Amino acid sequence: MITLSSDFGSPYPAAMKGVLLQHTDARLVDISHDFPRQDVRATAFWLQELLPYFPPAVHLVVVDPGVGTDRGAVVVRADEHVLVGPDNGILLPAARRLAEDIAVFAVKFEQGDPTEADPTTSAWPPEPDSQTFHGRDLFAPTAAHVHDAGHETFQTDDGFERTDEFAEVTFPEPTITDDGAVGEVLTIDSFGNVITNVPGEVLAGRFGDHVQANGISATVRHSYAAVDGGHRVVTVGSHGNVELAVNRGRGDKAFSIGVGDRIRFKW
Amino acid sequence: MITLSSDFGSPYPAAMKGVLLQHTDARLVDISHDFPRQDVRATAFWLQELLPYFPPAVHLVVVDPGVGTDRGAVVVRADEHVLVGPDNGILLPAARRLAEDIAVFAVKFEQGDPTEADPTTSAWPPEPDSQTFHGRDLFAPTAAHVHDAGHETFQTDDGFERTDEFAEVTFPEPTITDDGAVGEVLTIDSFGNVITNVPGEVLAGRFGDHVQANGISATVRHSYAAVDGGHRVVTVGSHGNVELAVNRGRGDKAFSIGVGDRIRFKW
Amino acid sequence: MITLSSDFGSPYPAAMKGVLLQHTDARLVDISHDFPRQDVRATAFWLQELLPYFPPAVHLVVVDPGVGTDRGAVVVRADEHVLVGPDNGILLPAARRLAEDIAVFAVKFEQGDPTEADPTTSAWPPEPDSQTFHGRDLFAPTAAHVHDAGHETFQTDDGFERTDEFAEVTFPEPTITDDGAVGEVLTIDSFGNVITNVPGEVLAGRFGDHVQANGISATVRHSYAAVDGGHRVVTVGSHGNVELAVNRGRGDKAFSIGVGDRIRFKW
Repeated sequence: MITLSSDFGSPYPAAMKGVLLQHTDARLVDISHDFPRQDVRATAFWLQELLPYFPPAVHLVVVDPGVGTDRGAVVVRADEHVLVGPDNGILLPAARRLAEDIAVFAVKFEQGDPTEADPTTSAWPPEPDSQTFHGRDLFAPTAAHVHDAGHETFQTDDGFERTDEFAEVTFPEPTITDDGAVGEVLTIDSFGNVITNVPGEVLAGRFGDHVQANGISATVRHSYAAVDGGHRVVTVGSHGNVELAVNRGRGDKAFSIGVGDRIRFKW
Repeated sequence: MITLSSDFGSPYPAAMKGVLLQHTDARLVDISHDFPRQDVRATAFWLQELLPYFPPAVHLVVVDPGVGTDRGAVVVRADEHVLVGPDNGILLPAARRLAEDIAVFAVKFEQGDPTEADPTTSAWPPEPDSQTFHGRDLFAPTAAHVHDAGHETFQTDDGFERTDEFAEVTFPEPTITDDGAVGEVLTIDSFGNVITNVPGEVLAGRFGDHVQANGISATVRHSYAAVDGGHRVVTVGSHGNVELAVNRGRGDKAFSIGVGDRIRFKW
Repeated sequence: MITLSSDFGSPYPAAMKGVLLQHTDARLVDISHDFPRQDVRATAFWLQELLPYFPPAVHLVVVDPGVGTDRGAVVVRADEHVLVGPDNGILLPAARRLAEDIAVFAVKFEQGDPTEADPTTSAWPPEPDSQTFHGRDLFAPTAAHVHDAGHETFQTDDGFERTDEFAEVTFPEPTITDDGAVGEVLTIDSFGNVITNVPGEVLAGRFGDHVQANGISATVRHSYAAVDGGHRVVTVGSHGNVELAVNRGRGDKAFSIGVGDRIRFKW
């Protein structure tokens, strides 16, 4: 099984699928191609939350604002999962959630010429013609190769190099006190629910209470529909973090807050 | 085969797919994850029109504004099809279209704690940790279980209870007279075509005529392109109902009409 | 393998998938259902660029503003690929890219009555009930039939007729001179990158230079991120054509240009 994740929208994911299907019979599963555009940290968060629900697979991930520069390509082994993507840190939080011990390998490749792009080049070793679409020309061939060759392939003579130098994405740490918490908005989902980095445990014993979120009052409840339509609610989202929401409305609007903003809770 | 329908947009459907793939090798087919958000009636209409085109399958449906409240979970058997979703009526119109006799079963489950969400819990019996994402934690495990265990599983000792008490969604009845019809807008498709509850048969013998739709004149034709670009047309849509459209434009704008609005035709 | 391409958005593609799955066990792969709406030429360009990355398959394509008029349905054989869609020219550029010699066949069908739509009609010969959704009622059954019956089926007595009369889509030819080039915008991708019909070879030897694009200065570079965020760049896209872009921004806005507009480069 190969999963696909990107910020490509449409139709570029199809080119990756075509390349994969040229080289492997693996089952393909779209995670999403609408991850927050060029937002490596938010996508890393989503992958950390989503990939653990999958059975062992090769996970192809392309949110890659640095495509065509000298940023590298990495493959990360995490137990029976393998993650493939740019060396911008996007794979690491998910990999560490999937396994206690991970191993990172650099992929060796040489840049080709985009005016000579050839749809039927071999999967391995990768020879990216384009400098603007490594999803198609580098990461998809790598994912197909890794899928079919298996875990034992990560050897230097096969185009991989074990490395301890790779980019990392980290999430900010919340500050939790007796009378509140200070955190940050990690991402906003398509419903407008505001997902923070504050762990849901801080709400234990406060369900039914009113709390202040950036000075705005809201009720702590277990579900969106526990408040009337249009009303603000503070809850624990499906990822276990504190979420700001509005029943049948958008939390981001009602709390006037966006990705990267600070959020201060007072109990 | 398991089909997936929701109003989740992206990326929450991936969590449901991961859970399904953990527990079953079934083929997965996305119906849509962009059904009208939290609009149970409109989605019920679309499912009624779409699911009969599918071969026998388990249909997982999650448009669920009441998630985390005391609304139940149901499984509906309709001939060789099985529908799984919240007990808000969304499954019933499709089920009745799929089979003359249907059987509804309540799913027995106990609510867990969202701060202890575990991606690798067993499929059955379902133990939803989150109260905000039963698609992942309750309905997907149920669909996987039903798919692999088969029709004979709907027994009380296996977590199901046959029931005659369940929510229903009904569509308003149009009024048809000799000189016109009065109906309601059920939904608007992504082209802007306005889909009403008025059966297409009322247009028999009127093709080529001008009619009034809420006082606005339009031609009755068999196809959008039978009128010039930008012109209004009244036609029979692919679901058999009367549709208001504009060739290469949006009917909803040209007729200034939205979901739930009344539509009065005069011949 | 059957691929699906359309401008349907959601949820109409599901009806095509249901029909396909009723009649074949083929693997289904979505190319995109968000091709530029009713833009036959832009979709033809995308298919020409995308389909060569796929292994041999049946490619079902429905961007069909003339649905329900007297436009025909065609099947195009291109080596081991088969393309199925409306006779509006959309298939031809991709087919000619896939094979040197192509063969075009007209599909014979009779129009049915949309008020008698029957989800379980046989795949072949096609009997489209609706006049507004031939994707479901004509092209999907044809694709399923062609997939399962194979290449040897294109015979007159099986509902096909070899033809030399069919619609074509052509792309405008750019004019290239010593001191510049004049071309046209073919499409704009979801990142806002402006894709022209000017071949990337014209930029050879100019990387690092400043050029004028419709009088606006920009740097020629191999990748988006080779310029600072928010800065304009002229590059060779993954299709090999000249592209106007902005690093971490939208090229269409920064160059004030849209589909079909003329673009004049001066070196």
